[in-house]
Amino acid sequence: MSDVTTTDLYEVTMALSYLHEDMSGSATFSLFVRDLPAERGFLVSAGTEPALEYLSAFRITSADVGDFASALHRPYADVAGLCGITFTGEVRAVPEGRVMFAGEPLLEVTAPLAQAQLVETFLLNQVSHQTAVASKAVRSVLAASGRPVVDFSLRRTHGTSAGMQAARTTALTGFAGTSNVAAAVRWGLPASGTMAHSYVEAFPDEEAAFRAFARAHPGPVTFLVDTYDAVRGVRTAARVLRDLRRGPGCAVRLDSGDLGALARRARAELDSAGLPEVRVVASGGLDEYGVDSLVRSGAPIDVYAVGTRVGTSADAPYLDSAYKLVEYDGRPVMKLSSAKVTSPGRKQVFRRPDGDDVIALSDEPGPAGAEPLLRTVMSDGRRLFPPDTLPEGQARLTADLEDLPADTLLIRDPRPGRAVFSERLSELTSDLSRHLRSD
Amino acid sequence: MSDVTTTDLYEVTMALSYLHEDMSGSATFSLFVRDLPAERGFLVSAGTEPALEYLSAFRITSADVGDFASALHRPYADVAGLCGITFTGEVRAVPEGRVMFAGEPLLEVTAPLAQAQLVETFLLNQVSHQTAVASKAVRSVLAASGRPVVDFSLRRTHGTSAGMQAARTTALTGFAGTSNVAAAVRWGLPASGTMAHSYVEAFPDEEAAFRAFARAHPGPVTFLVDTYDAVRGVRTAARVLRDLRRGPGCAVRLDSGDLGALARRARAELDSAGLPEVRVVASGGLDEYGVDSLVRSGAPIDVYAVGTRVGTSADAPYLDSAYKLVEYDGRPVMKLSSAKVTSPGRKQVFRRPDGDDVIALSDEPGPAGAEPLLRTVMSDGRRLFPPDTLPEGQARLTADLEDLPADTLLIRDPRPGRAVFSERLSELTSDLSRHLRSD
Repeated sequence: MSDVTTTDLYEVTMALSYLHEDMSGSATFSLFVRDLPAERGFLVSAGTEPALEYLSAFRITSADVGDFASALHRPYADVAGLCGITFTGEVRAVPEGRVMFAGEPLLEVTAPLAQAQLVETFLLNQVSHQTAVASKAVRSVLAASGRPVVDFSLRRTHGTSAGMQAARTTALTGFAGTSNVAAAVRWGLPASGTMAHSYVEAFPDEEAAFRAFARAHPGPVTFLVDTYDAVRGVRTAARVLRDLRRGPGCAVRLDSGDLGALARRARAELDSAGLPEVRVVASGGLDEYGVDSLVRSGAPIDVYAVGTRVGTSADAPYLDSAYKLVEYDGRPVMKLSSAKVTSPGRKQVFRRPDGDDVIALSDEPGPAGAEPLLRTVMSDGRRLFPPDTLPEGQARLTADLEDLPADTLLIRDPRPGRAVFSERLSELTSDLSRHLRSD
Repeated sequence: MSDVTTTDLYEVTMALSYLHEDMSGSATFSLFVRDLPAERGFLVSAGTEPALEYLSAFRITSADVGDFASALHRPYADVAGLCGITFTGEVRAVPEGRVMFAGEPLLEVTAPLAQAQLVETFLLNQVSHQTAVASKAVRSVLAASGRPVVDFSLRRTHGTSAGMQAARTTALTGFAGTSNVAAAVRWGLPASGTMAHSYVEAFPDEEAAFRAFARAHPGPVTFLVDTYDAVRGVRTAARVLRDLRRGPGCAVRLDSGDLGALARRARAELDSAGLPEVRVVASGGLDEYGVDSLVRSGAPIDVYAVGTRVGTSADAPYLDSAYKLVEYDGRPVMKLSSAKVTSPGRKQVFRRPDGDDVIALSDEPGPAGAEPLLRTVMSDGRRLFPPDTLPEGQARLTADLEDLPADTLLIRDPRPGRAVFSERLSELTSDLSRHLRSD
């Protein structure tokens, strides 16, 4: 199945009608998140990079048309008008790694109506998922206050492709590594992980397991110490490491129980064994809430491995994202249905050095000294810049985080950052709303 | 990237150690869900089919070895022992579509230790994700009490592959269709969907939009009526349908607001327009809780479209699944670490006609009249049966649901079904636990 047919059927039925009516005027769709989830002070933009790749490659083949016809139970000829369509439009987008707030467009597509509509499902899917995971993951990095955080989510993400994206997206937010080998190789990330409980259980005892592991792995090793009894496990690990004169780069991993208390015991055991350089890694059901509690309690944990809850963005597994038509054929448009009112027109987001962001119409000058966040990244269907690299996104995020107020950065009960409408956008919204209601 | 390298690094480090130690004894790993999420009375097994496909195709190529070496920062030669490994083991599994409870193995893998370990991440990933979505989706089918439910989740699933699996898995649980074209074509499912609010907005007014849509689509059409004002939208839809003498198979869709109240208004408008055959479709933030409330309130809704919350299993986006070594080289093994104690030995789940399931050792005869749920589906790395079809899984689920007590089927506060250990399994667990603690 091609990416082109991995789409909602209604994109196809609408496109067919547009072709039938010769409605080829230029349309602008705006992709944004309506509301922040609870416990999020901000979003981290992600997924725009794969979205642009998709648009550059978009092309409806005859095989795709065959699939559309089959899904619609219509003859090929009725759908053939879609064959050969590529994306020839313009995209204005916020790059990955920017801090964003509710209502702010992450991406605006301007293209002939059918094209702009046909790409909706894929763009929403990519940006929603990856922005959700990035916005969750960054909070673990913040909670860890400088200690490395690694991604162990692959086994419980929603399929392995979701695991690939989770590895990429957590890296964007500053994770120090991932357990996912394919992702590590593909994006040049440090790969992380050593042994499971099953490994220890396959040997007659823990010490035999640790010694065997060290034989196969001459570099730094991490011993999982809680298969039977964590404190005894740490002592065994310490004995083996001392015997083998291994220490620097090595670690013990705790994966269950009271991680804070066990980390203190482990630290004490390691120190008294003369192994102050051996680190303590904690894992097991952690996300930013657990990391925050452990860090605040002063637990001597050197590395946090977070997995399932971050990779699935478990407390907010989706964002209330939308891809809304805001302009067609030079005419601003909007929706009025209850609780889902949209605002019309092509937009720009201006970030002021102090104060709230301003969402304005794209042709407004914006407040003095404010930075426009959306820039034109595709024109005539071609990307204007080389694909973004992860370090570029990471650098943007680091800079943006420095500018956020402390209460927006809080792990618990953050104060959401926000954007206000410019006067012109407010006026256009209320004028058009009045006009539509009076129809 | 191959499926083989989309794995946790530790599978590779452990496998290398096993090769280094010549530990090629037979190991059995058991895949199960430790606890049911809140608000789930039971699970629906899913993901075993793709898991078996993965195992049949599993083969570590030299390119994979290169990736492993690169992730480990070791020379190719150090990892070369993994090259050419295929899966030659046995799999006992529960087929898709069975009702299952906490602690019951969904799948057991018996293979040379390294092989059985290397496949862990992928198997956990597939079974966890798909069982989570199936166990959520079936509840929408139950809540709808016979009314069709369709899948609209693709735009917010965790990537498009997750959307493909959501379409397949919701179909397994009895969904009547999906918006996902690629999934509809691939699995022969009805494709569903017609128009977005943007479609209506692209026309001068609603009536022009509906008429244009009908021109392009000679078959049954569904008009989205709530772009501006839902009741006015229904009237416009009724007028257009009557004018065009279209009615049978047609529908109006409500996507916002008080769906129950609007459905009543819509039904009344359609009936008084002489269009009793035109159906009402509801969508917008629905899952089983919303469907249940609407059905209980008697809302005249004929079709429910559920999306995001079901496709992401939003209130339980992951399962507490595990892949545990239970036997190695003829010796039962278990883990003791706090709160994660496992039970040893190869197992079977017996379903008694009355009473709780019994989890027993695989060589036990089981209670009289009980059905063993796990059967051998792979032997010597080969599948023993043709791939399961969706109708087969659907039929199993329908039969299993009929046997569940009413309080386990409840949408709110269900009483979780459960399994008890057989006497022999209980004894083995406590004997081995005592033995390990006394070491």
